[in-house]
Amino acid sequence: MMRAFAMLKIGETGWIDAPKPVAGAYDAILEPLALAPCTSDIHTVYEGALGERCNLILGHEAVGRVVEVGSEVKDFKPGDRVIVPAITPNWRTVEIQNGVPASHSEGALTGWKFSNTKDGVFADYFHVNDADMNLALLPDGMSLEEAAMLPDMATTGIHGAELADIQIGSTVVVIGIGPVGLMAVCGARLRGAARILAVGSRKKCAELALEYGATEIINYKNGDIVKQVLTATHGLGADSVIISGGPSEVLAQAVDMTKPGGTIGNVNYYGEGDILPVPRLGWACGMGHKSIHGGLTPGGRARMERMVALVQTGRINPGKMVTHTFNGLDKLPEALEMMHHKSPDVIKPVVLV
Amino acid sequence: MMRAFAMLKIGETGWIDAPKPVAGAYDAILEPLALAPCTSDIHTVYEGALGERCNLILGHEAVGRVVEVGSEVKDFKPGDRVIVPAITPNWRTVEIQNGVPASHSEGALTGWKFSNTKDGVFADYFHVNDADMNLALLPDGMSLEEAAMLPDMATTGIHGAELADIQIGSTVVVIGIGPVGLMAVCGARLRGAARILAVGSRKKCAELALEYGATEIINYKNGDIVKQVLTATHGLGADSVIISGGPSEVLAQAVDMTKPGGTIGNVNYYGEGDILPVPRLGWACGMGHKSIHGGLTPGGRARMERMVALVQTGRINPGKMVTHTFNGLDKLPEALEMMHHKSPDVIKPVVLV
Amino acid sequence: MMRAFAMLKIGETGWIDAPKPVAGAYDAILEPLALAPCTSDIHTVYEGALGERCNLILGHEAVGRVVEVGSEVKDFKPGDRVIVPAITPNWRTVEIQNGVPASHSEGALTGWKFSNTKDGVFADYFHVNDADMNLALLPDGMSLEEAAMLPDMATTGIHGAELADIQIGSTVVVIGIGPVGLMAVCGARLRGAARILAVGSRKKCAELALEYGATEIINYKNGDIVKQVLTATHGLGADSVIISGGPSEVLAQAVDMTKPGGTIGNVNYYGEGDILPVPRLGWACGMGHKSIHGGLTPGGRARMERMVALVQTGRINPGKMVTHTFNGLDKLPEALEMMHHKSPDVIKPVVLV
Amino acid sequence: MMRAFAMLKIGETGWIDAPKPVAGAYDAILEPLALAPCTSDIHTVYEGALGERCNLILGHEAVGRVVEVGSEVKDFKPGDRVIVPAITPNWRTVEIQNGVPASHSEGALTGWKFSNTKDGVFADYFHVNDADMNLALLPDGMSLEEAAMLPDMATTGIHGAELADIQIGSTVVVIGIGPVGLMAVCGARLRGAARILAVGSRKKCAELALEYGATEIINYKNGDIVKQVLTATHGLGADSVIISGGPSEVLAQAVDMTKPGGTIGNVNYYGEGDILPVPRLGWACGMGHKSIHGGLTPGGRARMERMVALVQTGRINPGKMVTHTFNGLDKLPEALEMMHHKSPDVIKPVVLV
Repeated sequence: MMRAFAMLKIGETGWIDAPKPVAGAYDAILEPLALAPCTSDIHTVYEGALGERCNLILGHEAVGRVVEVGSEVKDFKPGDRVIVPAITPNWRTVEIQNGVPASHSEGALTGWKFSNTKDGVFADYFHVNDADMNLALLPDGMSLEEAAMLPDMATTGIHGAELADIQIGSTVVVIGIGPVGLMAVCGARLRGAARILAVGSRKKCAELALEYGATEIINYKNGDIVKQVLTATHGLGADSVIISGGPSEVLAQAVDMTKPGGTIGNVNYYGEGDILPVPRLGWACGMGHKSIHGGLTPGGRARMERMVALVQTGRINPGKMVTHTFNGLDKLPEALEMMHHKSPDVIKPVVLV
Repeated sequence: MMRAFAMLKIGETGWIDAPKPVAGAYDAILEPLALAPCTSDIHTVYEGALGERCNLILGHEAVGRVVEVGSEVKDFKPGDRVIVPAITPNWRTVEIQNGVPASHSEGALTGWKFSNTKDGVFADYFHVNDADMNLALLPDGMSLEEAAMLPDMATTGIHGAELADIQIGSTVVVIGIGPVGLMAVCGARLRGAARILAVGSRKKCAELALEYGATEIINYKNGDIVKQVLTATHGLGADSVIISGGPSEVLAQAVDMTKPGGTIGNVNYYGEGDILPVPRLGWACGMGHKSIHGGLTPGGRARMERMVALVQTGRINPGKMVTHTFNGLDKLPEALEMMHHKSPDVIKPVVLV
Repeated sequence: MMRAFAMLKIGETGWIDAPKPVAGAYDAILEPLALAPCTSDIHTVYEGALGERCNLILGHEAVGRVVEVGSEVKDFKPGDRVIVPAITPNWRTVEIQNGVPASHSEGALTGWKFSNTKDGVFADYFHVNDADMNLALLPDGMSLEEAAMLPDMATTGIHGAELADIQIGSTVVVIGIGPVGLMAVCGARLRGAARILAVGSRKKCAELALEYGATEIINYKNGDIVKQVLTATHGLGADSVIISGGPSEVLAQAVDMTKPGGTIGNVNYYGEGDILPVPRLGWACGMGHKSIHGGLTPGGRARMERMVALVQTGRINPGKMVTHTFNGLDKLPEALEMMHHKSPDVIKPVVLV
Repeated sequence: MMRAFAMLKIGETGWIDAPKPVAGAYDAILEPLALAPCTSDIHTVYEGALGERCNLILGHEAVGRVVEVGSEVKDFKPGDRVIVPAITPNWRTVEIQNGVPASHSEGALTGWKFSNTKDGVFADYFHVNDADMNLALLPDGMSLEEAAMLPDMATTGIHGAELADIQIGSTVVVIGIGPVGLMAVCGARLRGAARILAVGSRKKCAELALEYGATEIINYKNGDIVKQVLTATHGLGADSVIISGGPSEVLAQAVDMTKPGGTIGNVNYYGEGDILPVPRLGWACGMGHKSIHGGLTPGGRARMERMVALVQTGRINPGKMVTHTFNGLDKLPEALEMMHHKSPDVIKPVVLV
């Protein structure tokens, strides 16, 4: 048996004893080196966004050490220090052959397994399916804190920029500058945006957004953000908009502030409501060529290796988002609570184990 | 002065006397040879979809004869028989350089001028801006009825297929099989779809859809179309969905029936309501990689020349949609009324002048 | 032991006895129902295009019956009649995650295994790696002859059209109208080409090209094909060119006949020479935006299922290419010889077993 | 009459008297503020790359002041300080409607007019066609030296990155690190490359390449650059290769060092030879999915405005390439000669007028 921090039921968390996971032929068992709680964990536990779950081990952001591998694993061995993507798809499906992104290789969102359809990483040990395809080596010299930003924050934020189809020299809006949004700012810069208008109100986040490449901050407390963007773009609107936070109405705002021919890239996880509104007039009655993309980040090994390469070459510095560090698995509840009741000075906490 | 058939105000049409239009240096004046009323005209007049208009000459689907050209027109001369696209953009704008589709070259939908922001084609004479860029020669041997399907119906329906990003061998749903939807069926076939599920209930349209390449008809009278599509696709959903008709709720249905990684292409003109609903769960909480595209058809000369080439090489046979032919400008009110109160045997009327 | 028809060494073929193949956990063993020799087999044997090979079993185009499956195969069982793609990649590699086409998942061309890096299908039995990912059910009612055109001819020819980035209403040239080129004509039509200029000289092929959708035949015996294409396109050149046959110089011709902004899609297997020439002036000194793509067809199950769907919906009729049918494995040498010394009435032979 | 520095004939330059240019209705006449000689001028004069020219005024990189505008020019007036793109297309052609890049709107390379098909900018005055579409305002605070890098160097180098289809986290090779290659390094970074291997031998260029974002320098003096790249990439090859310099053989090298599924983007102007070689084996016999793109940079106003935005937001710092500054039109011969016989400390000279 092992110790794990779990969602006991909607609204309640706690420590449980759980059986140590077992590796199949292609799998690996890991122990955590660094863990990070995610706003998604908050949605899952306190909003019941995934529905009722009983004793589901939480967590999907981890750096770990391999302790066991299955008989068919070739590239990893016990002792290896690795980065574990939040999204660990089954890479061998006919739907992938058909062009469906691997994140949905067995149905929508099926690549997201940790703390969703199987136990998460907040435990003494956790299981990774298809280790050769879903793990990446932690390079020497990369800090655990920085590495812990790659499994979800970095790849998700950057995917927002990929979805937004940014062209060189474009004007891009990033709505929401929590850790995913901050990485979306980096992503927009990585794709060649010139102006980046970051929408947020928290001072610490705004400062880091500017450091990461935002050229202007739009604060919703100063009025309608659509109007602010239109004013800043001489009425034309933005070429691309990345949605990395906000309630369902944010989709309507994004469409309204995008120019004809522009693109909206959504990586926001909408937790509530039946519908997300597209404004009929803002979408030019259906005919404005404002493309709407939204997707779960790519997962798997190659994606993590690319994130690693971006850090190693200095293209991104996600470690700057880590505002708080804890030591010891015991601190997981405290770190999670920090994401629950975000004080102004919190961007992202990490628990070192 | 000339005679023209106009929208007098919302809900009312009638003949008016209007000044004969004048050609600028790059423009042309035409007299109509064949005219077709469009459902959009019905929206404009009876639903006030464009807002109040007073004495606006109706009509944007025309084949005509050039009667006058401006001093800078090089490729057309009086007497030329030409096809006139419904969309006649200003082709010389910085926004086009920026990658904005020409249909929106001076703002959303600005390429749509006829019977919208300037007088339409239901008149003794009408004006075409930038003739060299916005007219295409009517080839010998093409019937006027067939040619009259190209300015809007053919190009718009086919654009639906373009927006839906169809891959070879895909399963495609076409929602709505009026004349635009029928051409969307042709478009799906032109892009390589294997299965084409056409959603409609009118027998005459369904028959032509099958002739044009639909492999199955989905009738909403037989139950929820989303369920029907999911059943027909073993629960996977369609690779691509083209929306070519329906109220705002059709967008939600389209998303629900699209598989992760699939694409929705909308050419439907939504005339009512504040918002178009994207279903939160059907869109996988924002993360399902179901892309939503919607746009006004490309206009202009090259687009019409491509439509002509498709007819000449037998790739499309849009003339089959012409169920009723009238003779004489006098018949315009009758033809328009036919689009207003569509009887089951009507697909599209044409007025020969 | 089993009987097999093999390349004994460069320039020599013959029957050999070989051990019956063994299935790994994910694999299947099949017996052939229909086999087709390919021009590639001729290259391999008589031109030594792959280098020296000793007792390599030939053949990569097969329809078969499953006789044995490994313990992990889920979707197929002994007795199933299946279509076997010529390209059977390893679908579980990091390179695929990195965006490399599966045909090259373990290095260039590694998806092409049969009669290249492992024994081919011209035998009593043959082995298929990863059966769930690399086999497709033969549907009831599809003839073996037609099905035998799918593993390579149909998918390769159509891939030429995919590579050539054809837009609706385009003018497309297909160079070479052997069986791959004929399917490239179908592919060009499937992607929406209007004019299709098919380059070839054999009467039987030209007739079928016209039936498949070519609008004009260009015969190199009538002069320089570049000049003929330029004349036919008023000096502009083609929008897209598919190369499906010819010596290395054909690449230069293709570039010369493509317009700026156009695309060349190559599925031709170049067997000789050190270099393929791109004409400096025809390529506008490197700056003409004439894109050059070339690739091995996608393989695997989903691809074959899409080919099946195209046949079932009547989009393609590849069975018309089968000009000669043989009965019995014994006839393989005769069928191969027919591809070696193509008489004017041969397009493609099939051996039914 | 005015004074101008011209190519008198192949191999010979000199000052000439020429008539002051006249503005058509949409055109502008400018006087130069800053001029830069380009390696292309050297090709034109000393290699006769464009063929014989008599008294052709040289130069296509300029920042200028408007002295006269035609009657239809709306956005510019005498006194405006503007950046003049090297490429000034006719933006109103049917080929652009057909998807042909504007740089080729009237045939291959027709967007390149200055010092090619009309007189260049090395004169007291020069003519710009379609001023509203082909000029961009010089913003306050931007130095003339920096601005002079935008008409050709910045946009061309960055276009190399666009053509090379760079994905986030990719490994990119840039062959040639003269001023265009240095900007290609910036372009690769702007598109999200992680590793950037810059191929060059000149110390000053290598230093600036590293500052601009290159992570490694490959020096051909250390051996075969293909082998060096393969070694550095564990035998896999690069994801993308940008060619920004070199003789015709560089294309073969680029193909050899690109992985299957990768892309080559060429902005090199090949001045000599009949053919550019694609290596048959390196291109996997035509089937390796190594895409080859090559193109003239986009020109026009919006492109220059995007370059300006990149400078203003600090994304690029092209001014660092200006190693030498001259004062006065008289210095043009000296500056041109500096490009002709490049000493090790020269990257790019600018002449301030």
